[in-house]
Formats: sequence, C-alpha cells, structure tokens
Amino acid sequence: MTLDLQNYAVRTDLAIDSKEMAQGGQKQTIPGLREDVEKKDGITITRIDVLDDAAATAIGRVKGHYVTLEVPSLRNGDTDLQERVAAEFTREMEDFLAKAGINKTSKVLIVGLGNLNVTPDSLGPLVVENLMVTRQYFELVPDQVAPGYREVSAIAPGVLGTTGIESSDIVQAIVDRTKPDAIIAIDALASRSLERVNTTIQVADIGIHPGSGIGNKRRGLTREILGVPCIAIGVPTVCYASTIVNNVIEMMRTHFRQETDQTKQIMGMLDDIGENDRLSLVKEVLEPLGHDLIVTPKEIDEFVEDIANIIATGLNAALHDAVNAENVAAYTH
Amino acid sequence: MTLDLQNYAVRTDLAIDSKEMAQGGQKQTIPGLREDVEKKDGITITRIDVLDDAAATAIGRVKGHYVTLEVPSLRNGDTDLQERVAAEFTREMEDFLAKAGINKTSKVLIVGLGNLNVTPDSLGPLVVENLMVTRQYFELVPDQVAPGYREVSAIAPGVLGTTGIESSDIVQAIVDRTKPDAIIAIDALASRSLERVNTTIQVADIGIHPGSGIGNKRRGLTREILGVPCIAIGVPTVCYASTIVNNVIEMMRTHFRQETDQTKQIMGMLDDIGENDRLSLVKEVLEPLGHDLIVTPKEIDEFVEDIANIIATGLNAALHDAVNAENVAAYTH
Amino acid sequence: MTLDLQNYAVRTDLAIDSKEMAQGGQKQTIPGLREDVEKKDGITITRIDVLDDAAATAIGRVKGHYVTLEVPSLRNGDTDLQERVAAEFTREMEDFLAKAGINKTSKVLIVGLGNLNVTPDSLGPLVVENLMVTRQYFELVPDQVAPGYREVSAIAPGVLGTTGIESSDIVQAIVDRTKPDAIIAIDALASRSLERVNTTIQVADIGIHPGSGIGNKRRGLTREILGVPCIAIGVPTVCYASTIVNNVIEMMRTHFRQETDQTKQIMGMLDDIGENDRLSLVKEVLEPLGHDLIVTPKEIDEFVEDIANIIATGLNAALHDAVNAENVAAYTH
Amino acid sequence: MTLDLQNYAVRTDLAIDSKEMAQGGQKQTIPGLREDVEKKDGITITRIDVLDDAAATAIGRVKGHYVTLEVPSLRNGDTDLQERVAAEFTREMEDFLAKAGINKTSKVLIVGLGNLNVTPDSLGPLVVENLMVTRQYFELVPDQVAPGYREVSAIAPGVLGTTGIESSDIVQAIVDRTKPDAIIAIDALASRSLERVNTTIQVADIGIHPGSGIGNKRRGLTREILGVPCIAIGVPTVCYASTIVNNVIEMMRTHFRQETDQTKQIMGMLDDIGENDRLSLVKEVLEPLGHDLIVTPKEIDEFVEDIANIIATGLNAALHDAVNAENVAAYTH
Repeated sequence: MTLDLQNYAVRTDLAIDSKEMAQGGQKQTIPGLREDVEKKDGITITRIDVLDDAAATAIGRVKGHYVTLEVPSLRNGDTDLQERVAAEFTREMEDFLAKAGINKTSKVLIVGLGNLNVTPDSLGPLVVENLMVTRQYFELVPDQVAPGYREVSAIAPGVLGTTGIESSDIVQAIVDRTKPDAIIAIDALASRSLERVNTTIQVADIGIHPGSGIGNKRRGLTREILGVPCIAIGVPTVCYASTIVNNVIEMMRTHFRQETDQTKQIMGMLDDIGENDRLSLVKEVLEPLGHDLIVTPKEIDEFVEDIANIIATGLNAALHDAVNAENVAAYTH
Repeated sequence: MTLDLQNYAVRTDLAIDSKEMAQGGQKQTIPGLREDVEKKDGITITRIDVLDDAAATAIGRVKGHYVTLEVPSLRNGDTDLQERVAAEFTREMEDFLAKAGINKTSKVLIVGLGNLNVTPDSLGPLVVENLMVTRQYFELVPDQVAPGYREVSAIAPGVLGTTGIESSDIVQAIVDRTKPDAIIAIDALASRSLERVNTTIQVADIGIHPGSGIGNKRRGLTREILGVPCIAIGVPTVCYASTIVNNVIEMMRTHFRQETDQTKQIMGMLDDIGENDRLSLVKEVLEPLGHDLIVTPKEIDEFVEDIANIIATGLNAALHDAVNAENVAAYTH
Repeated sequence: MTLDLQNYAVRTDLAIDSKEMAQGGQKQTIPGLREDVEKKDGITITRIDVLDDAAATAIGRVKGHYVTLEVPSLRNGDTDLQERVAAEFTREMEDFLAKAGINKTSKVLIVGLGNLNVTPDSLGPLVVENLMVTRQYFELVPDQVAPGYREVSAIAPGVLGTTGIESSDIVQAIVDRTKPDAIIAIDALASRSLERVNTTIQVADIGIHPGSGIGNKRRGLTREILGVPCIAIGVPTVCYASTIVNNVIEMMRTHFRQETDQTKQIMGMLDDIGENDRLSLVKEVLEPLGHDLIVTPKEIDEFVEDIANIIATGLNAALHDAVNAENVAAYTH
Repeated sequence: MTLDLQNYAVRTDLAIDSKEMAQGGQKQTIPGLREDVEKKDGITITRIDVLDDAAATAIGRVKGHYVTLEVPSLRNGDTDLQERVAAEFTREMEDFLAKAGINKTSKVLIVGLGNLNVTPDSLGPLVVENLMVTRQYFELVPDQVAPGYREVSAIAPGVLGTTGIESSDIVQAIVDRTKPDAIIAIDALASRSLERVNTTIQVADIGIHPGSGIGNKRRGLTREILGVPCIAIGVPTVCYASTIVNNVIEMMRTHFRQETDQTKQIMGMLDDIGENDRLSLVKEVLEPLGHDLIVTPKEIDEFVEDIANIIATGLNAALHDAVNAENVAAYTH
C-alpha cells in the first residue's frame, strides 16, 4: 500500500511529520485535512483531523484524530515546564476520552509497549510502572472504592524477542479475559526530524498499526482487532541515520536558496530529485555499509524517564476525577 | 484447611522446611513420604515424594514430587560452583520434564512471577530476561528452525499492585491463546530458615498454590486450573522476622540441651510449648509493633542475579537439546 | 575500649539506640546527657547532647550533638509525609550548620559513602546523584554565580572492595586538594531495632567513626583527621539477625511481665542474664551456623530511594539560601 | 592550536579516523607515521606510531603509540567473538605495559571516566565495577597475597556536573596520596564514523587530553601532569549528528564517482569544497536549529555492557599473571 511504503521511506510515526512532508515547503492545504494549532508558553499543540480517504492517502496516515504536543525545551530538564506539559497533556487526554465515547466509568486497560532494557524503547514499560491502577480494588473490595476513581489496569507485555509472543497477542488475550471498555497504548516512536525526538508527544485515536513503533509489534492494536476503542500515545525517541542525513540535505537546500540564487550549482543533481528519491539514494549509500543505524540522543536515559513521568502523571489525572494537579504527585513517583 | 494454616504459621514455601518441622528434631519417618538425599561436592539434592493424603497432611504440603538443591556456599559468588549448580539443576529439570510427560517437542511457556523493582521479588522476571525463547521462529519461519530446539515462550506478568490484574489471570489468558503443552513458573519464596535463603532451589510438579510466594498471587497456577502440567521453580529470598526469632529460640533450646540437663530452667515456659504456639507468641509480640517485616540479606542484589542466571542457564540447557554446557553461555547473558 | 565493644555487641550506629540501652527499661536519667524530644504530626525529633566523658562512656558514644528524626510511617510511601520530613530535616540541618560554625559562604564537600550496587548500602551514592553541586561555577565563572548559592561539591568514593582504596583516604586526598571548609558525610547504618530501619535519620557533629556504617570504612572521617568540621548523616537500613532475635526476647520478657507475675518460669535463665550476655548467647548460637546475616526489609529498593530523595532535597535547601521549599523540586529529581 | 581545531572540526577521538582524514581517499603515506595492520578472524588490529611533530601536525594527534582493535561484528552480541576480542585486547595491553616500562610489580591505578547514569558515557564506571582490585590486600595483609598478582586500585571519579570537581583533580589527588606507578584511564569517545561506534577499542600511551571524551574532562590525564605513565583506553560510543551527515555526503560523492563521470553536476558546489569547509557548512545549518545532537545507537545499553566486560576481562588478565583465559570468568562478572 502506498501509505505504508511512503511512511516506511521516511520512517516516521508522527502524523505531523507526514503532513509536513505532504505539504512540502509551500505549506499547501490538503483537502480533507483539518488542522488547528495552539501555542502557549513554549508548548505547541497541533490537532489534526484526517477526515477522508483522500487526505489519508495524501499524508500517508489512516483516518483519525491526532494531537501533537511539541515542546522544544523539554530536553532541558526544567521541572516547571514538565508540570505544565503534564497539565496540557491531561486536558488533551480528557478531550480524547470524551470524543472516543469513553465515559467516567469506562474500564481502561493501559498497555506499555516496548523493552525496559533498551532505553529508547523503554517508554511504555516506564509509564506502566508509574500508573495508578485500581482494577484490583474494584474486583476485591468494590464497595470500598472511593468516588472519583475508575477501573484501570495496566500491562507491559514485553517484546517478541524476549517473550516469543507478539505483544498484540498478549494484549488480545488479556482483553478477552478482563473485558476493558477501552485501551490506551503507549509506545516509543521514530521521527524523521531530530528536533522532535524526545520533545514531542502524539496522541491518536487510531490505535497502534503494523510497522509503527521502534520494536517488533506486527499485528497492531486497533479497534477493529480488539473490539474496543484504542488510543495510542507515542513519543519519538529515535531517528534513522538516513533520515537525519536526508533532513540536513533538505535544510541545506533551503538554507542556500535563501543566500543565493545559484541553488542548482550548489546541490547539483540532489536538488532535482524528490525527497523520497533522495532518501532512497541516501539509504543506497548507507545500507551496504550496515550504517543505517537507529540512533538516539546520548542523554536518552534522562529524557525517557522525564517524559514517562509526564505521561503517567497526565494519565493518572485524566483517568481519575479524584486525582488532580494538586495531589497527583502522591500517586506518581 | 490444616495444611494452609500450618504453613502460614511457619511461613515457609519449602517442602524441605515443612518436612523437617513435621519430623521434629528426632527425624522420625513419615508414612507415605519417600525421601532420597544425594550429596556431591557442596550440593545436597533432596528428592521428596509426598505419596498420599496422610503424608500431605503430615507435612502440610500437597501430594507431588519435590526436588531441593541446597548449596550453602552459593552466597560466596564462586562462579565455578555456580556452573556446577547449573549443571545439576539442568539434570534435575530434565528428569522432571520426563516424569511430567513433557517430551522433546512439547511447547513450554515459562512464567516469571514477581516484581522487577523489588529486588528479593525480582527472581522470576530476571530469569525471563535471560531465557532463550523460540516460539516466534516456530510461528514465523517454522521450516528454518534448526533441530534440537523446542517451542519456548516466556512472560513476566507483573504483580497485582502494578497491573491491577492477578498474575494467574494473565497467565490463564495467555495459555488460552497460545496453547502451550506445559508451564514452568518461577517465583521467589519465603523460607523459615535463614540459611536456606538464597542458597536453595526447589523444583516441584505441583504448580504455584494460593498463598505461596512472597507477593500477591492468590489464584494459583496448577494443572487443575490451567489444564496443562505446571512445574514450579522457587528460591527462598526472604524470611519473616518472626521465623528468624522462632528459629533461634529453637536453636538455643537444642544448643543448651547439649550443654546441660537443666533445660527447663533455661528456657522456662518457652520450652514447654509447641513450635507453632511459640511462633504465635513471637508474632503476638512482634505484630502490634508492626515489626513482622519480611527481611532479606543485604547482598540480595547480587544473590538474586546469580541465582537467576543459574536457573536461566539450566532451563536453556534442559529445554533445548542443541544447547549444552559448552555453548550455553552464548544463549544466556 | 569499652565504648566500641559495647556498640559492637549491640551492633547499632544510632545514639538513640545506645541511649535507650544505657537507660534500660526504667528510662533512668544519665548524668552529662541532655535530651530534648519534640513531636509533630508523625515525626519525633530527639536532640541529644553527650556533654562529658562520663556520659560518653555511659552510652558508648563519643561526645557531641546528635539529632534523630523518627518517622514510623515513612515506609508507607506517603509523598506528603516525605515532604514534611524533608522540611524538618532542612531546619535541623540549618541549625547544625550554624552550631558547627559553618556559615553561609563556607565551602562544603558532601561525601556519599557506600556501594551503589548493594541496595541497602547505596544511600550515600544515591544522595550524591541528586545534589545540587556548584563548585564548578565558582571555579570557572565566579562572577556569574547568582547570590544565594554557596560552593558545594560532592563525591561518592566507592568501597574498599571495588576501589582497593579506603574511602577515608580518597576523601582525605580530595580535601587536601579542594580545601573545603566543612564535610557532610552520608552513610547507611545498622540499627538494633527493626522498627527504626528505614524510618530514622540521624545527624551528628561527630563525623564518621571507625567501625560505623555497614561497609568497610575503617579509618573514619572526623574533624581530628580531616581538619575541618565533619557532620554525619546516617539512616539505618539494616539489622543484624542476632539483634532482631535479642530484641524480640527482650520484648517478650516485657510483654509477659505485664500479663503474669510468673516471669521467671516463662523465660527461665534468659531472664536472669543481662542484655549483652543474652546477645552473646544468641550470637553463640547463630554464628557457628553462619547465620548472623545482616538483613534488610524486602522493600529496600523503594525505601532507600525515598529517603535519599528526602536527604538530597533537605541538603539542597539547607545549603543554598536561593533554594527553598517552593523551588527545591526544580533542583532535585 | 591547529591540532585541536582540526580534531574539533571532525569531532573524533580516534587516531585512525584522523589518519584516514589526513590521508584522504588516496591513502597517501604520511612521513613520520608508521602503521602496521593485522587482520585475524573478524578483528583488525591497527598499530600506529606518530613518530615526530610533523606527523602529529599532519594527522592532528599528539606523538605516541596508538593501537586500534576494529571488530565490525561486535554489535551482534556473539559471546565467542567477545572472548576472542578480550584475548587480543589482553595481548595488546601486555605489549603496551611492557613498552611503557610498566613491569610485573608496578602499581596500577585504573580510572573509569564518565557518568554511570548516561548510558553512552558509562563505559569507564562499568569497567571499574568489574575489575579485580588488590591494593587493599597489599596494604592490609601483604604477606598473604599469592604470587601472580600486582597492586591494582580503581576509581570512578564521576563527572563535573555531579561532583563539582574536575575528574582530573580527583585523580591527581588520589595519585598524590596513593602513589601508583602507572595510570590506565578508560573513557567513552566520539567517532566521526558511525560504523566504528561500539565496534572499536583504541589504546594509546598518550593519556587523556583536554577536549577528548564525550564529557567534561578539561584538564587531562597525562604523564606530564600526573608524573607517571598514563595509558588511555577508549571506545567510541557516540557520533555527532553533523559528522554522520558529513560522512554520508562524502560517501555519496565516492559512490557517484564510481557510477558516473558527471560528479560535479551531482553534488554541485558541495563537491568543490574541502571536507572541513563542508563540515562547517553542515554545522552552520544544524546548529541554529539546536540539532547537532550527540547520538548513539538505540541498543547502546547492551553494547556498552558487552564492551565494558571485554575491557575488564582483558585488564584483569593483562595485569595479573595469575589470571588467564581459563579462570578470568571467576574474577569478572
């Protein structure tokens, strides 16, 4: 399918990346795609609706609602900013739950995809470690549960290489047995743009699709497969070396174009070919040498921990009315 | 049931502890219980068969086959000894599999119970991290699997406090979906004797029973519940403070009896009462003060890691004919 | 020396333990020892001054000022309580610094003793990881340092078994080179009472003495040795099995005495002998069997992390005027 | 100094990188530089002697002896290969020690530079954790030390941001106090070539120079500063995004040149400028956007652990005659 090939080519899991590529430098509008951008105090929230198949094909993303929080300064370790991001994320999650028809008493299963022992892939399991799960109280002592809490469970299914079982199979098995009303899946992603790595949170109502994420999660977690709404939360934690290179070549072209009108002579043939062709070229060079490594910033340990904390905090507040900005720290560590 | 109460009273998960308590100091024989002890070079292997209900009641353990490897020097970090223990453990596992009717092609699911973030409870998840799983190859590229391997999968289901779901429910769900022929469950245990903590491996064909283990795994993993044979591997990593105290009082009584015939006057009333009454007494003192802590040796990090490695090494060798003492390091790290 | 033997016998590093033992059950006053106890909302602060040699001999502690914060509920993981403890600890540290003549511009070197890889011994290194060090700015860009900060450096010297060098030698070397005005040393301790483990913080102006702490730090860090004031912060994270047993026997005696007047017959000879003799007896029983393990509660990972965070937070606030309760989170993670 | 600027420009810490750049694509010989390449079974050992100042200037490296082990397959996690690399590394280290005049009884201090909490910078501290240190035995029980051991101590001094003290100051302080005869310093490096990251070990007799390594170790550890020979062991664990891009552009140029003779038109102006100018250009584009991240492969956790183990194993065998290929596992974990 064109969609997949194209996304594979650029190797991004972010709708905002795909949209920008489809628009090109000219920022042309795409029919069937609605976009709303809000900026506040260092946080840019972009809400994209992919409304029809044409728009889906144009940007290479399935139809659905995508929200992206971009926080360029998130890598600075500023705890004040982190708290504000958690608050915005809580608000967006509440909207999402409402739109997906997940009401205050719906039972939610949170799935932390990825591998705890590969730092850039550890986001999902780290979030799970910090969630406030309550299902056990509803099962064991239902009349003692205080108001303001819903039934939340959570699982980190591990990765195929460690378990021998597709994580989607594990999730499906648990869904069959515990019958949640909705799934929220958290996964580490790849981005085509280095500056979005570890600074961006994407929420989408489309679940997890085959080939997304940085690990091996082939079958996907979607409403079609699982039978309940499935919201996906993703954070790009890695880039392919080839996308970095391709990105810079693109940036150089833009950069020179501003300085000179002799573009052609600067970049030569590289300038004439389209982005995907150029990317193939970059890969053709990199792959025989075994270099198309997936890379991550060297401070990844701290970045992933900080973002996992933001997401866990936001989920705890969004899912339980009794948890809010004031007392959330008591539930998350 | 008497069995459970008694075992609760002494808080041990080791059949060898229960047997010794039932025998008392005099080492009397118990009808319906067959025992075989083999000693080699620092390793004592005790094979106990609880053959009938009377024996089960007598020692407070369900009927079944129990093998215990006791290695008093295991806490010294001697890698030579560790390799020999892994080799003995492999042999015992192979016997167990054969006796349980698990043949060379039976599909095995290994379950690592416990919590990775609580060191003394992390044994199961640590073993899972070092297993050689193969189910994915049998599923995806069945004709490319070399001879000498069987289908092995593994899961660390987490604990109730983190997932909100009983680990037995998670295992049951995965068993229903992936249809293994046998289960091997690994769990950290409590022992009544401090010297067995982190020096003992117990294997039993009885699965995991309610109340066993040091975490919350209420429903149990047994052949009756899961429908397939379930072998349990356990290592005591903790003791209750009360059992330490009780143990020492017992040791003091024995000690003094050897030195004097005035026992009564030394221990007073403590000497007249039975072990369980005395233990209740110790707890009566400890619990109001909130002291009946579960304790573990301070070097627990290293101890658990070493034993997890021995078990993973042994399982890899016992389950795959192609893996043996020479090449096992290549599969385990 | 009597002092050392006695403290060795009971194996405690807490002055409050030593004082209680010297007082016996009757809580008799000890000449030369001044004590002040303040209780607020779940925190008991005991300030002890050992004023003369007689008092020092009586309780088996060197002369000096000792403050103990006891927080029995600290093991419950309540973040509100943790914040209040950090605030009280900050206040006590500020008093200590003032009393020790360490003024607002004195340069402080913080020493985190212990081994990061042995959880109950990891307190010191964990605190160091969360401190706000500033010495580098005073060295490199002195005119850009904002007011309200002092020069703070920190070191985790490791343990003898890993470095081959006494940690006191490493500290001495760094003191000689960097010339701090005062030392604050953090170490994990042993307590004789299980309920004080992981619930108690001791601050003392006496430095670290040979044989204290749970690792191998023979030479000590004291004003006499290092030439500058040395404040010691300690948290008991372990108990000896023998002290647990001895403790319970003592508790049983007290317990029975309340219920009956037949004490003698209950405990027999155990009742007639003094605490130290009884302890020797307990050890005589335990040691030949190699059981006198140092034990720690099984939840030690979380306990140590929480307390390390409290101490780092408190030190950051006590040492820098610009850091206070409101913004301290921004400096500590 | 030209040297530094040039090395900064390409941001590499590997002499082999510098040499290749100085040679250009034509592999021209450089006067004053002696090179010897040995290939065996997947391991390429390159021994470079920078004999005079002219050669030093030519390649931008100080005079000295450099050995590089390149093992392209090291990232595959093959334990057999790891053992062979450890054996080759042992041999090279033994040569190095002999050449540097460090005899069998010389006292060695091993310094593990870097930050344990930043995975790509954790190589040094990880090696230290696995070394066999013996100095304490020579100090405490000198007549009980078996033959075949020398006096080895080790320190992980931490990083400036955590300690507030330059690591070179900490090392100098410890050298002054413990008087070793030689230093071996281990550090994580940056490479200009992605394929050398985590596959290469460099040993050099030049110590650690200002600006080398991926952290802040400004003052350097050299024979001139410390007064004793200082051998540096380094492994590139990171790349700058800019060097990846630059590298690929270079590779594209080579690639196209083979396919076509219209090179100019393909790469345009990029082709006419020298490598350093092109790199400046790449940086000019990347830096304003804050993108010149230091990146590392996503599997860095496992890669660093494996290589740290190889180095520790090799050092233990090279430093102690009594430790060899057969028993080295008993000393390293």
